[in-house]
Amino acid sequence: MPETLKLAEYLFARLKQLGIGAIHGVPGDFNLTLLDYVEPAGLLWVGNANELNAGYAADGYARIKGISALITTFGVGELSAINAIAGAYAERAAVVHIVGTPDRPTQDERRLVHHTFNDGEFGRFAQMAAPVTVAQVDLKDPRTSPELIDHALRQCLLHSRPVYIQVPVDMVSVPVSAEPLQSQIRVPLTERTAYSDGVIDKILGRIYEAKQPIILVDGETRALGIVDLVQRIAGITGWPSWTTAFGWGLLDETTPNVYGIYRGRFDTDVDTFIKGSDLVLCFGPHFSTTNSYASTSIPKAEATVYFSHNEVKIGDQTFRDIPALLAADQLLKRLDTSRATTYYKPPTNLSRPRPSNYSEALKDQPITQASFWPMVSSIVRTGDIILGETGSAGHGCRDFSLPRYVRTFVPVTWLSIGYMVGAAQGAALAQRELIAASKYYGIPSARTILFIGDGSFQMSAQELGTIIRHNLNVTVVLINNEGYTIERVIHAPAFFGAKEDTFTAKVRTLGEVQGLLKTEAFRSAEGFKMVEVIMDREDVPEGPLAWLLQHQLKKTK
Amino acid sequence: MPETLKLAEYLFARLKQLGIGAIHGVPGDFNLTLLDYVEPAGLLWVGNANELNAGYAADGYARIKGISALITTFGVGELSAINAIAGAYAERAAVVHIVGTPDRPTQDERRLVHHTFNDGEFGRFAQMAAPVTVAQVDLKDPRTSPELIDHALRQCLLHSRPVYIQVPVDMVSVPVSAEPLQSQIRVPLTERTAYSDGVIDKILGRIYEAKQPIILVDGETRALGIVDLVQRIAGITGWPSWTTAFGWGLLDETTPNVYGIYRGRFDTDVDTFIKGSDLVLCFGPHFSTTNSYASTSIPKAEATVYFSHNEVKIGDQTFRDIPALLAADQLLKRLDTSRATTYYKPPTNLSRPRPSNYSEALKDQPITQASFWPMVSSIVRTGDIILGETGSAGHGCRDFSLPRYVRTFVPVTWLSIGYMVGAAQGAALAQRELIAASKYYGIPSARTILFIGDGSFQMSAQELGTIIRHNLNVTVVLINNEGYTIERVIHAPAFFGAKEDTFTAKVRTLGEVQGLLKTEAFRSAEGFKMVEVIMDREDVPEGPLAWLLQHQLKKTK
Repeated sequence: MPETLKLAEYLFARLKQLGIGAIHGVPGDFNLTLLDYVEPAGLLWVGNANELNAGYAADGYARIKGISALITTFGVGELSAINAIAGAYAERAAVVHIVGTPDRPTQDERRLVHHTFNDGEFGRFAQMAAPVTVAQVDLKDPRTSPELIDHALRQCLLHSRPVYIQVPVDMVSVPVSAEPLQSQIRVPLTERTAYSDGVIDKILGRIYEAKQPIILVDGETRALGIVDLVQRIAGITGWPSWTTAFGWGLLDETTPNVYGIYRGRFDTDVDTFIKGSDLVLCFGPHFSTTNSYASTSIPKAEATVYFSHNEVKIGDQTFRDIPALLAADQLLKRLDTSRATTYYKPPTNLSRPRPSNYSEALKDQPITQASFWPMVSSIVRTGDIILGETGSAGHGCRDFSLPRYVRTFVPVTWLSIGYMVGAAQGAALAQRELIAASKYYGIPSARTILFIGDGSFQMSAQELGTIIRHNLNVTVVLINNEGYTIERVIHAPAFFGAKEDTFTAKVRTLGEVQGLLKTEAFRSAEGFKMVEVIMDREDVPEGPLAWLLQHQLKKTK
Repeated sequence: MPETLKLAEYLFARLKQLGIGAIHGVPGDFNLTLLDYVEPAGLLWVGNANELNAGYAADGYARIKGISALITTFGVGELSAINAIAGAYAERAAVVHIVGTPDRPTQDERRLVHHTFNDGEFGRFAQMAAPVTVAQVDLKDPRTSPELIDHALRQCLLHSRPVYIQVPVDMVSVPVSAEPLQSQIRVPLTERTAYSDGVIDKILGRIYEAKQPIILVDGETRALGIVDLVQRIAGITGWPSWTTAFGWGLLDETTPNVYGIYRGRFDTDVDTFIKGSDLVLCFGPHFSTTNSYASTSIPKAEATVYFSHNEVKIGDQTFRDIPALLAADQLLKRLDTSRATTYYKPPTNLSRPRPSNYSEALKDQPITQASFWPMVSSIVRTGDIILGETGSAGHGCRDFSLPRYVRTFVPVTWLSIGYMVGAAQGAALAQRELIAASKYYGIPSARTILFIGDGSFQMSAQELGTIIRHNLNVTVVLINNEGYTIERVIHAPAFFGAKEDTFTAKVRTLGEVQGLLKTEAFRSAEGFKMVEVIMDREDVPEGPLAWLLQHQLKKTK
């Protein structure tokens, strides 16, 4: 007789095998029995304040740990989360969305239960999930449930995009075969072939000819699983290297040939140099207008080799079925650096993030966008995670100079305002788990720092409660430029359950910022902290955001 | 040359014609130009804290004023609201969901803009809206836009369900014909025919035979536009009358033959009487399990005439294309009360809501579910709106004895926790508009009272900010049964911007409740107030909720 276990046990064992340590979500009566199996499986139940935030958190967790899981309830719960799932699809976060659904008899008999449209139709919400997920499975048969789960999880990993798994209440504890658990779920690998070797040959040919080659790392590099490979290519070539905003933090900016974010037309010297390059190796391209400084940071096709999900593009030729993972690996193995232009000297005018120019003479000056970001850059430490919400925070924080192993979340494409609060919870939890498992570059302590405006903060503020309850190392820097004169935001930690000794502060002048940066209670990574920064309403970071706002204003008029 | 106006002007003129005075929603860059036309059209822009809450608020507003409008932005905004739209579909609230979308060139050229999946596909979100709306139109052609708008609005009114209107940015100010505005949008009326007369004859035949007829009013009665007709039928017949939870408040409970909510098996005397009835006129049936006390309050088919959206059902015979409006109107016109059993004496044991049995001897007693609801019933005044969130509040408040013209929101079918905070904002605004227009039964002042547990409150708490900013007459009674010992919830009003002199209170004993009920600052309708009520965690209102929880617990084990 084959060994069996309960369906919920199978599902959670699989998630654990994939490295998931915690499950995000919100309880509801169609998922309650499923939730009973979370902690016995050795998984933490996060229990978010609402489903949209839970989805954001699962997305943030997945971007740090590679994959995450979210549990909601039929109809009301899953639809509340669907915008977060869509964002995970758009920007490639591997979220396993598990939905507890009514039992099979209720569905089969078309009973008029709650969380439906009172019409006996149970298929609508799966239909709505389809456009935002790469696999949808409904576990209604014990014989096929393990293979459907495995299929969904493989799709999730392969595409680094959400999948949708429906679990009827009466399926939770049915026995299923334990046998598949003997082998791990893996992304199907592509082996090298004569065809792929030929494509690598072409790329090597371009490399050996290039006089001014550069590297541009976009954010899908993370989803493609080639971050380390790309870092090594940048290391052995010494080529001048940039990231996009989406890719920011994936390259080690403390190495001399890594310059930070390429800002297209908003940084003339860099732009001129990159436009003059005869070869751009571009990894994980994701050139939405918002991730490419209004399309001005897209390298010209004829000089570029693109490494994408399952294809390589050289100039205008596309070579399909060559995953970036295969291509980057082969490139690294076969590159003969002695035949390439390596460690050449680019012009000295290529900009890097500016250091703070604070002096005591400025101490009574009000805080401006231009002065604040370079100053606050100094709080970022090795291994920290930085989040800047869509708007001035998401642009301003790009002035930071990043220590090693810093991961960033800034506006890319989906730009759902409010996302960053939930994402901060998920990212901080993933960070803590990695540190606890000694899988965080040997770093013993780090924190997650969220920069957000007060308008954005309000969209999903209740997730502070989750951050506080799980005692996560999250620092919230709230940019208050609405000019509120009453003491308002500072009530948030108390409302959401923070202990009385929680660090909070409010700063209005550059001197106060400087004082804050020197305060040990603020500098330490441990626990939840919240700081309010008062700025002028009309102040916007110089550069692309100011340009976009003006541009949009013109179009409107 | 025909007269024209801008598309946005046309759209908002139509909304205004339909009685909409305010538009709910959240700004986003694809709807900003559209929002410029809201106030010039004489409409209030509400500006909610997030889109899900905005959707809830639009739903609440629609249930009080008949129809509402919601504006969100493409992708992120509309998907955040979609759970609220689904709820409006399930429980029949006429919400016009207007989505600002990218301009036509951007869509036609498949540009990789933000709020997309970076793949040039712009049709996904309309596809996701289709299952939860009764019409979807995309205004891409000035020649057809007026008729598409009119079609969508007519569908919205006819079904009292949401519709979906996409407005590309570059369509906002295109000129369209003003001519259709000369005629109002109306629900197509059905005229009486020999066929419909025959059906009414059958109903009258049943009525004239009946010895123990009763009336049961369910919540779709509101959406069917027959509330007044049904009240008049109850008035001229004097038949014992009940509502469901969904229909609660639609009949005047101050008249002697109206008994309140029929609770199925949870009220034995009433149940026995209704089961013994030989004729039930049932208006607007919506018998989900949660709205029918686990299906026990559904009258037996052979004794029942059902009046539904577009059909009448007599016993097991369905007569299509007879709208409830036609049937109820004809019934009222043709009913010869001298041939019917009217104003008969039902048994005296039929229960009504219990009055409070508070005495000074109880003043130090802790507050229990059993004691609290009958006591607090006394704060409800003529014209108030009562909301009880899914859970103990939504069941407990059913013990209230309702003055005239009180409307209620309790858990029906969709049961999306967090809904009631948004709905309170929308309902209170609709109430204020009706009072200001002297269309509120001559009532000069009334308020909206929300009863909610602290766990539910947190899901959408930020909408307090909107309630406070618009200075709505909303009283929040927060049932805190989580046993928090720190001062937590009381920070909410300050965090969400309430003035320092806002009325807040916290009560722990029956004596404190009694004191509160006598406090003039609490009793007055004006402005925002918040009260926290401490109860025991394990305490649940007796009756159906306790039964359901036990029942569920058993099934789980």
